[in-house]
Amino acid sequence: MDGSFLIGGQAVTSSETFRAVDPATNEALDTDFAVSTKEHVAQACKLADEAFDSFRETDPEDRAAFLEAIADEIENVDGLVQRAMAESGLPEARLTGERGRTCGQLRLFAKLLRQGRWAEVVVDNAMPDRQPLPRADLRQRRIAVGPVAVFGASNFPLAFSVAGGDTASALAAGCPVVCKGHPAHPGTSVMVARAIANAVKKCGLHEGVFSLVQGTSNELGAALVTDPQIKAVGFTGSRAGGLALVELAQKRPEPIPVYAEMSSINPVVLFPDALKARGADLGKGYVGSLTLGSGQFCTNPGVVVAIDGPELDTFAEAAVEALSEAQPQVMLTSGIHKNYDKGVELLSGQGEVKTLARGAEGTGCNRGRAALFETTGEAFINNPELAHEVFGAASIIVRCTDFDQIAKVLEGMEGQLTATLQIDEGDHEEAAKLVPLLERKAGRILANAWPTGVEVSYAMVHGGPFPATSDPRTTSVGTAAIERFLRPVCYQDLPDALLPKPVKHDNPLKLPRIVDGERE
Amino acid sequence: MDGSFLIGGQAVTSSETFRAVDPATNEALDTDFAVSTKEHVAQACKLADEAFDSFRETDPEDRAAFLEAIADEIENVDGLVQRAMAESGLPEARLTGERGRTCGQLRLFAKLLRQGRWAEVVVDNAMPDRQPLPRADLRQRRIAVGPVAVFGASNFPLAFSVAGGDTASALAAGCPVVCKGHPAHPGTSVMVARAIANAVKKCGLHEGVFSLVQGTSNELGAALVTDPQIKAVGFTGSRAGGLALVELAQKRPEPIPVYAEMSSINPVVLFPDALKARGADLGKGYVGSLTLGSGQFCTNPGVVVAIDGPELDTFAEAAVEALSEAQPQVMLTSGIHKNYDKGVELLSGQGEVKTLARGAEGTGCNRGRAALFETTGEAFINNPELAHEVFGAASIIVRCTDFDQIAKVLEGMEGQLTATLQIDEGDHEEAAKLVPLLERKAGRILANAWPTGVEVSYAMVHGGPFPATSDPRTTSVGTAAIERFLRPVCYQDLPDALLPKPVKHDNPLKLPRIVDGERE
Repeated sequence: MDGSFLIGGQAVTSSETFRAVDPATNEALDTDFAVSTKEHVAQACKLADEAFDSFRETDPEDRAAFLEAIADEIENVDGLVQRAMAESGLPEARLTGERGRTCGQLRLFAKLLRQGRWAEVVVDNAMPDRQPLPRADLRQRRIAVGPVAVFGASNFPLAFSVAGGDTASALAAGCPVVCKGHPAHPGTSVMVARAIANAVKKCGLHEGVFSLVQGTSNELGAALVTDPQIKAVGFTGSRAGGLALVELAQKRPEPIPVYAEMSSINPVVLFPDALKARGADLGKGYVGSLTLGSGQFCTNPGVVVAIDGPELDTFAEAAVEALSEAQPQVMLTSGIHKNYDKGVELLSGQGEVKTLARGAEGTGCNRGRAALFETTGEAFINNPELAHEVFGAASIIVRCTDFDQIAKVLEGMEGQLTATLQIDEGDHEEAAKLVPLLERKAGRILANAWPTGVEVSYAMVHGGPFPATSDPRTTSVGTAAIERFLRPVCYQDLPDALLPKPVKHDNPLKLPRIVDGERE
Repeated sequence: MDGSFLIGGQAVTSSETFRAVDPATNEALDTDFAVSTKEHVAQACKLADEAFDSFRETDPEDRAAFLEAIADEIENVDGLVQRAMAESGLPEARLTGERGRTCGQLRLFAKLLRQGRWAEVVVDNAMPDRQPLPRADLRQRRIAVGPVAVFGASNFPLAFSVAGGDTASALAAGCPVVCKGHPAHPGTSVMVARAIANAVKKCGLHEGVFSLVQGTSNELGAALVTDPQIKAVGFTGSRAGGLALVELAQKRPEPIPVYAEMSSINPVVLFPDALKARGADLGKGYVGSLTLGSGQFCTNPGVVVAIDGPELDTFAEAAVEALSEAQPQVMLTSGIHKNYDKGVELLSGQGEVKTLARGAEGTGCNRGRAALFETTGEAFINNPELAHEVFGAASIIVRCTDFDQIAKVLEGMEGQLTATLQIDEGDHEEAAKLVPLLERKAGRILANAWPTGVEVSYAMVHGGPFPATSDPRTTSVGTAAIERFLRPVCYQDLPDALLPKPVKHDNPLKLPRIVDGERE
């Protein structure tokens, strides 16, 4: 393992270094990782800017091949999953699956590029004889916004990190990426970054298309977001972290968009017939989703809402039983573990909140003890503290008096990534009434599933109203994520010789087009 | 003329009033217009929120009919053009044309709604047998973001005001609108607002779909932008005004997007062959575009860049001649006129700036005297003051040493709405080299035209990097403007009974869809 970071294709060392820590033991791992300075950030961003014009005008097929080359390279990195295990405390099966997801994501964006819809080419043909004024020839396409800063997330060391969804969608759009590796998994970050750099080289692209900077300070991230070459930011993490980046980005002489995916408690509503038919199964399923990956998912079900009664008791009992059996798992970092414990303590200390169950106490460092609470609808409505995200396997059951109170509980919530309905056919009428409210609150509405699974596909929305994200018009998972890094440009009466390929008259890239208002 | 404003369908009066001023005479016009209070704003926003769920789920055909009804109503308002003339100082032909543009815009959005692409429906069918995990049924569509605040602009009392592009696109998206009328044309605003309210009634929609508040204070606008029911803002106006709204919107507990179209000097590059072939004609055409509507266009050509030499002299001489003959026109308000004179004075006092010509001095109030300056490429590069927008018919010719300096002049500019190339065939090679730079700088690139005409069509982009707009991913003119007011929502495994019409399995609205990655 080589601890240098990457500016373009160049491995760079530094006098200052840091080490990764194995969260299972709190012991430092073997490699010294070089810390990037502000000057390194500026170099990487300058290189990204130099790469921008050539990279953004690569043919979609060439960018698709590049994304596939990255996937191939990542699949061939020796010891990647093992290193990620040591740095994150996540189990092998999960990380093997995550590697597959990461590579599948890159290949899906390759497919999207070949389909060509992403360029959104629109042509209004000239109407020289129109009265009272002729119409010019107008051609619109979407172009890459510019170099993008990507912040690796701790909880998906592969799928939301160096070659994760933000990087994949930015590169697909034609934006060079300067990534700040998450300090919890620097070795994983370096290994993936080298895979990307290999693909850059093999595909004959400008080396500035990708750089990785590393370090533990907030100043490093601030330098990246405020660099004048950077035109957009992708981030997944805490609300405080996301808001700090948004503020920095808005105070720039040229403000830029920050796509921060931040905070969500993902309400699950249990309806009477579903509860009656399968309350115990639902309780078990709920705890399965809650404790998955030690609860370290953005879409973790943090609150369950239902009408109080014996059916809800059955659900709660099954949940308590499952949770009590839940084996404590290593959390990602000692910082996350401490914050989790603090959040659980804060929640358990609130008035009218009852602790229903705790998971087993683990032996060893940073084991997350699952926690289940309950409260009343009224208490939840009146105490906003109960709706704050606790990152980890903590959740609260809210016992409501009736459907009206359920609606009030949901109405009082901030924006969410997901909202889930557990329903049987007899519940449809009441559930249908909630759908408009949930559409206002969340980016994804599920029925009879648990929110922790996030498919990488065309229709997925992993986003939602503030504070779930800083920009609810977008998604950070699925093909629509590419839209975050594109902006429209219109060409008026440009001679064909001057038109970029995607809008040339004979359509050499065979892109799908809207011509005079109709699909061609 | 009745001076009340509108909360939903209700005409509301107030103890405080203000009057419109005829800029041609600086005399107050006849009607006392009621000033809305913060409480009125809150009422209008609450009503908009109440209207939201029913309005956003109207069938596209019903919203299309509503937009057409607004256009019909506006065409039938007696005395609208005359009132707008008195309040804006703009001539009859211009305002008659603007009314046509406004109604055409509403009808184009009606057509767009019927085409259905705006809903961007995406379906990923369930794959129950997929290994290792089944795929759920996933359906995405775009829904309206919520009630929208629209700020009427002074320079287009119809096309960018109460029923202008922001209102048309927000209503098309399914967003109720609370409009703050521009205080320069309150009578025009009330007349158009009543036309919209009539259409709301005739179409049987919730009255909260549209309200108009009026007044002269910044506090009124602040109350509107910070109202918790408002979910997005449309604005066209000054940089200071736009940035103030952006700041207010970002400090809200729930930050919201502001689409502010602000500041642009719209560079025009004259290439050698074009200059040689038609320098004098270009000079005349330039002044025609510059002085149109007293230069009160966002896309006014504020700077011309070319290689110095006798051909540029010919251009400049023709421009000087045309400008000296330009009749002074009434500007929109005395405030705008004062700011224009101040901007011209500031520009003329800069080192290495020469005043080439001034338009004739007018008799009467608020006549804008056109102004033409010139400077060197070096001076322009070194003095950012020379690149500040002067709203009105002022422009500067920048004499460059060579193509490299032209590129440097453009490179140093902030974001722009437009960039124009005057080229002949022999210029193509050099012009092509500039296109990538101009794509980074502007939302629209024109050849052999003047930027002041902005077609309302499918391919138009009236937007651009900061400070041309606060959000370069969008346009405020053309059908793509609707995207500003939509956000994606995904439905996972929802029974058909619970799915909204646009994503139901049998596609009752016959919307175009992407199914499993392919266009249906």
